[in-house]
Amino acid sequence: MISVADLQRRIDAGELSPDNAIAQSLEAITAQDKAIGAFVCCTENVRAANAGPLRGIAVGIKDVMDTAEFPTEMGSPIYRGYRPRADAAVVMMLKQAGASIIGKTTTTAFASMDPTPTLNPHNKGHTPGGSSSGSAAAVAAGMIPLALGTQTGGSVIRPASFCGVAAIKPSYRLLPTVGVKCYSWTLDTVGLFAAGIDDVARGLSAMTGRPELLLPHTIPTPRIGFVLQDFAGAPETSGQAALRIATRAVEKAGAYVRALNLPQIFADAWAAQPIVQEFEAHRALAWEYREHYAEMAPLLRAKLDGSRDTTPAAYDAAIGIANRARQALEKVFDDGDVLLTLSAPGVAPKGLGSTGDARYNRLWTLMGVPCVNVPALVAEVNLPVGVQVIARYGADAQALAAARFVEGALARR
Amino acid sequence: MISVADLQRRIDAGELSPDNAIAQSLEAITAQDKAIGAFVCCTENVRAANAGPLRGIAVGIKDVMDTAEFPTEMGSPIYRGYRPRADAAVVMMLKQAGASIIGKTTTTAFASMDPTPTLNPHNKGHTPGGSSSGSAAAVAAGMIPLALGTQTGGSVIRPASFCGVAAIKPSYRLLPTVGVKCYSWTLDTVGLFAAGIDDVARGLSAMTGRPELLLPHTIPTPRIGFVLQDFAGAPETSGQAALRIATRAVEKAGAYVRALNLPQIFADAWAAQPIVQEFEAHRALAWEYREHYAEMAPLLRAKLDGSRDTTPAAYDAAIGIANRARQALEKVFDDGDVLLTLSAPGVAPKGLGSTGDARYNRLWTLMGVPCVNVPALVAEVNLPVGVQVIARYGADAQALAAARFVEGALARR
Repeated sequence: MISVADLQRRIDAGELSPDNAIAQSLEAITAQDKAIGAFVCCTENVRAANAGPLRGIAVGIKDVMDTAEFPTEMGSPIYRGYRPRADAAVVMMLKQAGASIIGKTTTTAFASMDPTPTLNPHNKGHTPGGSSSGSAAAVAAGMIPLALGTQTGGSVIRPASFCGVAAIKPSYRLLPTVGVKCYSWTLDTVGLFAAGIDDVARGLSAMTGRPELLLPHTIPTPRIGFVLQDFAGAPETSGQAALRIATRAVEKAGAYVRALNLPQIFADAWAAQPIVQEFEAHRALAWEYREHYAEMAPLLRAKLDGSRDTTPAAYDAAIGIANRARQALEKVFDDGDVLLTLSAPGVAPKGLGSTGDARYNRLWTLMGVPCVNVPALVAEVNLPVGVQVIARYGADAQALAAARFVEGALARR
Repeated sequence: MISVADLQRRIDAGELSPDNAIAQSLEAITAQDKAIGAFVCCTENVRAANAGPLRGIAVGIKDVMDTAEFPTEMGSPIYRGYRPRADAAVVMMLKQAGASIIGKTTTTAFASMDPTPTLNPHNKGHTPGGSSSGSAAAVAAGMIPLALGTQTGGSVIRPASFCGVAAIKPSYRLLPTVGVKCYSWTLDTVGLFAAGIDDVARGLSAMTGRPELLLPHTIPTPRIGFVLQDFAGAPETSGQAALRIATRAVEKAGAYVRALNLPQIFADAWAAQPIVQEFEAHRALAWEYREHYAEMAPLLRAKLDGSRDTTPAAYDAAIGIANRARQALEKVFDDGDVLLTLSAPGVAPKGLGSTGDARYNRLWTLMGVPCVNVPALVAEVNLPVGVQVIARYGADAQALAAARFVEGALARR
């Protein structure tokens, strides 16, 4: 993989020109993307900026985010050839930090569940996960150092786990969703994929102009709450192994790990998340569902068909549960700086029939808290599995620092 | 003015066909809009639906809201001829309730402060207010029974006050902003204009599928907290008179009115609102500001120029103040079901140099609570002034019922 930190170091030292850094990514895409299918489109006419912390960094943008210079097709024939007038806010944040937008990455239709043709770079017989399929795969394959995705259920953390890359779903609204196709306004969150935690932190810090998001020179030893999410069902062997290995590694590295039982309100919130998600999707995608029903992707359409009778009262109740769970979560963090849990049930499912299951992600998306995927294990058949580090709402810097601690502990085990 | 309730009654009774109801609005637009300038564009090719509570209701849509069938120009040459692919969520909600979209109404550029050419129908020497200038004026002139606007500072309640129409800025997110040009994601709220409170309630109830928003048969007598907003400066004579007249009328009608002093946190939140608004606008409008600086409307551009150095830390502090004020507001409502305060400093300013001042609105937009304008007084030179009824977050039905109480009390005085 291409490391943002490494590129920045070489560019700062004058060993690599920003234009050559971009050219390397273009070459890697040309060489590899035919076999992976991570990009919907990309450009050869891209120049590096000569200033900004992300100069020389080629970024892939999930194709649900508006770009004035590329079509934005939402993974759906309904948007074939669609050219937005403006760039999404996060695209402009990247450009203002000096990054170069190199292309658009594949997305499931409207960031839902219908798989893209993208293959998992680690094992082409498996899905890269979704909905941010192309962004995770492009970083994992070493084509680009940084990519943007979105998460409504588990669309950043899950593909990152399946593809063995670092990723953050930041606190809700740390990154604006202006110009990002909406699925659920309560849940949609823009996230970042990169090689390692330091790389993710550099990307997020540069985009937001928040130096406090950079990793500290000395990573503090976190107090860790270990969480199983029983309400979401049992993990697979590989997911369980990743969590066990990560837990042992951080304990060996000196962290205090305490198992936490989440109160019932979190099981309720976990069950409420799909109600919020689909009720809002019916409004956010009303034009597509009503005017282009025949062209809707089948899994998404079936999900909308199955949820069309959700009442405003059921939605209000689900929002009420979410609010109570958010308050209760503040107390959970009294027992740990961060939580450590599964990123996904296990390795990427075989074939391209499914992008996998978001069941260990959706509670945290509803909570709006920062979640970081740390690659933890490469299982049989060469497939990675990650673990998830979660901090309080707004404590993105703490989530990243603790994730770096986990990453370091795993590297030393 | 054309009343939604009256049209519904006549359509239900078979006295008026939905198509004829729409035709009446088209005729009124043809007859009057040359002199008012409320519409950016409108269509003659519109048919009424034959079902739905809003069948036969012609609606004007503020031109910051995406419409697949009309250009969406944001009040700015940067979007000249722009055709969105999809309808905004609120446009689809109207259509699904049977309404007919008759045209797009004028907006200040990106719903900020630069005046449109729209005139106040009550006195053409005065502004109709903004930023939802065309929507307020079109309803006030009796061209259409219902219109949508947006409020980030005071862009629904203020023009409603200046134009003498009823309007609601509902609780934050009761109506989705999907497909509405973003200025500030924390503040932007879609609102409705109509002839009277019952008409507004019927529109909002039909759009959201929430029958509880319809007015009850018997309007309960509210406990009213009277609020001056001293931190926002003193009102003009006409604003003061409107509030005094409304207060006397509701007392005479049997309501208990108690003067409330808002604690300091609300003055702080009032001062924090512009920080939130402009910080987010810099991100929401980054493409326009960076790529089309020369074409930006001058007042908006100057506002963005003046706020470009706002730090993330200042923004975070402003958001923190807003959160504390929202909690404190819950306690304020222990002393009254609703608050009664100014909708605007006074009558619409003379000329078209300014759309007026949002200083009595912006705190409530930041609080996310439902606000209703009730026309209260027609001052000298034939200009109306309204008063503002405010309820708890989520208590939109209570806000509407109390506003109806105020409206009834004013009619009987």
